[in-house]
Amino acid sequence: MKALGFLSGKPMVVIDDSVAQLLGVKPHERVEVRYRDKEIVTIVNVAGEIAQDVILASDDVFRYLEAEDGSEVEVTPSPPPSSLEYIKNRLKGTRLSYEEVKAIVEDIVSGSLSEIELTALVTTMYHVGMSVEEMYYFSKAMAETGEILELNRKPILDKHSIGGVPGDKTTLVVVPVIASLGYTIPKTSSRAITSPAGTADRVEVLAPVTLSLDEVKEVVLKTNGCMVWGGSLHLAPADDKIIRVEYPLAIDPFFVPSIMAKKKAVGSTHVVIDIPTGRGAKVKTIGEGHYIAKDFIEVGRRLGMEVTCALTYGEQPIGYAMGPALEAREALLTLKGKGPTDLVDKAASIAGTLLGMVGVENGKAMALEAIKSGRAEKKLREIIEAQGGDPEVEPEDIPLGDKLLTVYAESEGIVLWINNKVMAYIARLAGAPVDKGAGVLLKVKIGDLVKKGDPLFQIVAERAYKLQLAEKALEELRPIGIGKPQEQMLIESISFVMPHERLPIIER
Amino acid sequence: MKALGFLSGKPMVVIDDSVAQLLGVKPHERVEVRYRDKEIVTIVNVAGEIAQDVILASDDVFRYLEAEDGSEVEVTPSPPPSSLEYIKNRLKGTRLSYEEVKAIVEDIVSGSLSEIELTALVTTMYHVGMSVEEMYYFSKAMAETGEILELNRKPILDKHSIGGVPGDKTTLVVVPVIASLGYTIPKTSSRAITSPAGTADRVEVLAPVTLSLDEVKEVVLKTNGCMVWGGSLHLAPADDKIIRVEYPLAIDPFFVPSIMAKKKAVGSTHVVIDIPTGRGAKVKTIGEGHYIAKDFIEVGRRLGMEVTCALTYGEQPIGYAMGPALEAREALLTLKGKGPTDLVDKAASIAGTLLGMVGVENGKAMALEAIKSGRAEKKLREIIEAQGGDPEVEPEDIPLGDKLLTVYAESEGIVLWINNKVMAYIARLAGAPVDKGAGVLLKVKIGDLVKKGDPLFQIVAERAYKLQLAEKALEELRPIGIGKPQEQMLIESISFVMPHERLPIIER
Repeated sequence: MKALGFLSGKPMVVIDDSVAQLLGVKPHERVEVRYRDKEIVTIVNVAGEIAQDVILASDDVFRYLEAEDGSEVEVTPSPPPSSLEYIKNRLKGTRLSYEEVKAIVEDIVSGSLSEIELTALVTTMYHVGMSVEEMYYFSKAMAETGEILELNRKPILDKHSIGGVPGDKTTLVVVPVIASLGYTIPKTSSRAITSPAGTADRVEVLAPVTLSLDEVKEVVLKTNGCMVWGGSLHLAPADDKIIRVEYPLAIDPFFVPSIMAKKKAVGSTHVVIDIPTGRGAKVKTIGEGHYIAKDFIEVGRRLGMEVTCALTYGEQPIGYAMGPALEAREALLTLKGKGPTDLVDKAASIAGTLLGMVGVENGKAMALEAIKSGRAEKKLREIIEAQGGDPEVEPEDIPLGDKLLTVYAESEGIVLWINNKVMAYIARLAGAPVDKGAGVLLKVKIGDLVKKGDPLFQIVAERAYKLQLAEKALEELRPIGIGKPQEQMLIESISFVMPHERLPIIER
Repeated sequence: MKALGFLSGKPMVVIDDSVAQLLGVKPHERVEVRYRDKEIVTIVNVAGEIAQDVILASDDVFRYLEAEDGSEVEVTPSPPPSSLEYIKNRLKGTRLSYEEVKAIVEDIVSGSLSEIELTALVTTMYHVGMSVEEMYYFSKAMAETGEILELNRKPILDKHSIGGVPGDKTTLVVVPVIASLGYTIPKTSSRAITSPAGTADRVEVLAPVTLSLDEVKEVVLKTNGCMVWGGSLHLAPADDKIIRVEYPLAIDPFFVPSIMAKKKAVGSTHVVIDIPTGRGAKVKTIGEGHYIAKDFIEVGRRLGMEVTCALTYGEQPIGYAMGPALEAREALLTLKGKGPTDLVDKAASIAGTLLGMVGVENGKAMALEAIKSGRAEKKLREIIEAQGGDPEVEPEDIPLGDKLLTVYAESEGIVLWINNKVMAYIARLAGAPVDKGAGVLLKVKIGDLVKKGDPLFQIVAERAYKLQLAEKALEELRPIGIGKPQEQMLIESISFVMPHERLPIIER
């Protein structure tokens, strides 16, 4: 056995095609590799020009077998896992049982299913739809095959947004509010995949977010809350492998189970799912929002979790800032009582809903009071400190990019619309989320009256060439619409379709 | 750039995940690798524990770039091909145009689409169905992206069986018959994937089948016919890559275009598609056969090809022999006038249909006469010689396995059914098609009267342990049913479902 020289994340071997023929294995079938008293089953890659007596293997295989470069191993064909049979049955229309789902998820996690097999499952679920029963099975199995956060507390509150609206730093306000009122809220978040900033990217401006599960537990037991990156915690790890397939195809049939699995894994008992709704959001209509809400609520019920879905206004960015540092600043300002009204209302509404679910009356008023009194700000600083950040940080300490471009109104009128996707695109071109100080800062929101020459928004970048990329893109795009409603009957002329017309929900 | 040490059939590179993050590429996205004045775009594999300044690459990349182990290369992110956008559109329901199909097929051939992307296309076509228009587009594009056999003759006759019935050596009789009557029939065939023998496996017992396209041309111009393995000719090469995805999933949405593409690539003008029909065949009912026939005929029409579909009786093996050598013997015997009636009738019917299509009257009678007169046998020997085999070969010269097991009737009655799938399975366990001398030799066919103790069939193997495997499997399986029809009202009790209940058509 010879080393390929990398760790592929799942065991990987390559053999010559003449050897494959001899063994009677086809590409993507399995072989068992045995060394001394250990054996491992892996999917086989078939290539040319490898010596007949050589099998190439990734470091994963060497480590598992405790073998060394040059070790003599025995290679035999191995039958496919039974989970493949279940996937093939699903393709032909059979619904999956819990035992079948569990076997599939275990094999996804261990890397025993090939990409072809996993893609077939994902694409099939996309085309024929997953039943609520199956969503529940996948949620449960995905949670059970990963780490579990054991806090031994009840209730455990949580919130999650399905995303799609740029600038949504609601979590950075909700978590300190809830924790400051004595409730436990262990929030894990993702980084941005297609947006200018994920919650983990925003929080990282204020404090480290890559913690171990034990560290998370310590932070939560001390402060009642946390805001950490979920990626390093191995909660529902099947989801990462599923996203790897969904992402290039821009489809997301697993978004309900994967969100719910992560909530289950941290022991949440009361969860608000934020569903931003409207033109420019992922969910376009209130009807569609109801449809998705039903799945979340029902899957939650079966998992023993109370779920409320909050359909929120999603037709423009939340607040004014987009990009990690700009948004961290705005969140901090909000907790200091100087936040934009839409962000304050959204955060207070979601916190209030959560509080209502655990029997608190006037939850929204209490949330607003926690902000006004500075109690939530104090709690945020506790959480920042517990996660290893600077608890004294002030908005103006947060560094921003110094390459600026302001876009001005070319005519007078009312701001009729702000295009979420275009704004997110511009912010990403400017460098967000990789350049933390990059993004877009709005100067107006829908309904504002502007005069010709008024600033509409500012692009912020750390690097000049990225600012130029964003500026160049503006030549073709129209991020903000200004006019008089009664003289603007044409809503949109569609002649160019932007890639990913319906944004998949893969930031979860 | 460091060498992975193998030729993967499509360019493959591996980089460290820290480098991927730096470049902003996700697994399965693309990078451009540049060396001196050459560049290549490849899908990127992301792994761990690779040095930051190293990119691992398969030999395909080194050869294309004319680089050496250790060469300094430049790596930059590269956008996905537009074919990915077409596949994503297809997922969402848009039918494909010819230009889109062409781009997809070109990228399949060049390896520019990841397995995830190709699987999504295949699974989508399986779930939502391919329109006849799309079948035609894929047929045309698949033919155009491969080699073309230019014979400059007309008409060019051809036949193809969608398979599923073991022992079907009809081609070995039809080709010499047609060629002996002065018509051109350049037959390419596949090897077995799930059956005991493919036509290429059968012919290989008599003559080499791995020829170059120039050699094929020479053989056909000399003898009017050939029987070669299609796999080495690069006709419609996209099909191999599609089958690699279809096979593990046991689905076959591309079978019509891939069969038709290969017919187009050899310039066929008149084609008979044999659709074995009935219990135990791939196509269970005559209605289903009509449905499939419609697609073949219509796609053929658009390709400028006349197609007739022959629905043939497929409820038991053709002739008595299954396995490469056993079948080659039986075919040779048939051309010597000593063939089983069903094989003779099937071959003469298909040859007769082909002859009828080019205006010959009494084609079937002419075909039977070509067999009876020895004219077809003489032609077979010419073809064998032209392909490099021994033209003097006689049936008894063909070596068979010497490990034998005969199964006897346990009761008296009429042979009511012979299970195709069980027979194929037993023959494969005995060693076919890898062990050319292995297989099953029937002693009875449906309708025969047997007495207790009469031989029903014989298992032939080259290796004792394989004979034992086949023998052991017989404990659980019932390959032949014997009884009196009027006392056998129970057709089947289904309690155990064999894997791959509906056999996919991937031997094509």
